[in-house]
Amino acid sequence: MYKAEIYITLKEGVLDPQGSAVEKALHSMNFRGVQEVRIGKFMQVVLSADSLEAANQQVKEMCDSLLANPVIEEYTFNLQEVEK
Amino acid sequence: MYKAEIYITLKEGVLDPQGSAVEKALHSMNFRGVQEVRIGKFMQVVLSADSLEAANQQVKEMCDSLLANPVIEEYTFNLQEVEK
Repeated sequence: MYKAEIYITLKEGVLDPQGSAVEKALHSMNFRGVQEVRIGKFMQVVLSADSLEAANQQVKEMCDSLLANPVIEEYTFNLQEVEK
Repeated sequence: MYKAEIYITLKEGVLDPQGSAVEKALHSMNFRGVQEVRIGKFMQVVLSADSLEAANQQVKEMCDSLLANPVIEEYTFNLQEVEK
């Protein structure tokens, strides 16, 4: 069994209205040092696969076809074997 | 300048309907090995602070007071100095 931790972020240059809203909220709460906030997604996927390589390939395909929007987002992930 | 990478996840035991929906979608796309999907948030915050310790304290306060919902979510973060 493998566990993937996937980080999906907006590509640089893509506007992040949610991040801007949180940034303004933080300023209004007196966190004046905040310069930038970007918000993305963090996904944990547990999957069975024959090998680490096969799991890696599957996670890549999932990201490309469903989890991330390749037009505006990019992703990275790490993968480890887990017991379960 | 410091950059915090914050990972916010639902506490164990809290239902994750978004994760369940993605899990079903992956199954229907023939990713049959998928056992569990949990979806959280990944935030990047750039902030200025006098020291790493001060930045750490600020990020903790932000998470506790705005970024995470302590009732159902938990968070971890890492912090590093960046040039900018």
